[in-house]
Amino acid sequence: MNYCPQCGTLVEFRIPSGDTLPRHVCPNCATIHYQNPKLVVGTVVEWQGKILLCRRAIEPRHGFWTLPAGFMENGESTMHAALRETAEEACARIEIDELFSLVNLPHISQVHLFYRGRLLDTNFAAGAESLETALFSEADIPWSELAFRSVALCLKAYFADRSAGRFVFHEDDLIPSSVY
Amino acid sequence: MNYCPQCGTLVEFRIPSGDTLPRHVCPNCATIHYQNPKLVVGTVVEWQGKILLCRRAIEPRHGFWTLPAGFMENGESTMHAALRETAEEACARIEIDELFSLVNLPHISQVHLFYRGRLLDTNFAAGAESLETALFSEADIPWSELAFRSVALCLKAYFADRSAGRFVFHEDDLIPSSVY
Repeated sequence: MNYCPQCGTLVEFRIPSGDTLPRHVCPNCATIHYQNPKLVVGTVVEWQGKILLCRRAIEPRHGFWTLPAGFMENGESTMHAALRETAEEACARIEIDELFSLVNLPHISQVHLFYRGRLLDTNFAAGAESLETALFSEADIPWSELAFRSVALCLKAYFADRSAGRFVFHEDDLIPSSVY
Repeated sequence: MNYCPQCGTLVEFRIPSGDTLPRHVCPNCATIHYQNPKLVVGTVVEWQGKILLCRRAIEPRHGFWTLPAGFMENGESTMHAALRETAEEACARIEIDELFSLVNLPHISQVHLFYRGRLLDTNFAAGAESLETALFSEADIPWSELAFRSVALCLKAYFADRSAGRFVFHEDDLIPSSVY
């Protein structure tokens, strides 16, 4: 941030009085512009034991496989974001069971949430941001072609829980080992 | 947002090509400025069956009681945010057990997370943003003087679960019925 979004003045980057962290502060209108982590919300949904994945048509990770997910929008709930992203990326109608996984990615200031659920039918298809969509059995998951580590982590926890016969909530922190 | 934080040009508010929602778009440098929900993270912590609350020294809801909580910062995890806010607002050393409650407030584009945990000692005290801090038994919770509905919701779920002898994860949506 270089300019104040409010009044257009060049901002300063300094610790406001009473604060502990440097912020972008406008010397003209005195607005403090806070920057906060973003939520990415998605789903891990089943049809007859298989999991719905999308192959990305956009960067980053064009051509790699992922769970349907995307940035949460203002004005929606986390569950609504999960339903919307699954509809947008995979044109899929689903029912959500519950929150399954929370993955912190502090190095890129993101929190990823994945809901567990079920496809209501097999009329899914690639949305505008997907090259293709497909159902994968556990044995066929393209592990080396997954787009993001949070997706791999969620899928591993999912299959482990399913084998154990019970799903629990998972929380993990991912620290940088590679770009994704 | 009136001006592009990147280059200082007056922004337009329109739906970018390939998008579905209006965004602040810079006609000069073409940056799309997305705005996303913010995470507020806090704790519900016990000492000998009593719950730690803080009385707010800042607006909104100056003088009302709340669980220690605040906006998650870039570069931290949700659990780190919970520990930091509890230290800042109540000078409290705690141990966290697990995520207990997620409350969506879509009308103000916030997601509140509360972790369940325990005080490690009673050396807590009012931080800079609190007037006072105190332990409350279930019977003494100042329900009519709570600052936020998400806090009341979390506390009610907490006591219900504790009475039932087991804690489960709770997810709720709050829609506007009053300002808070």
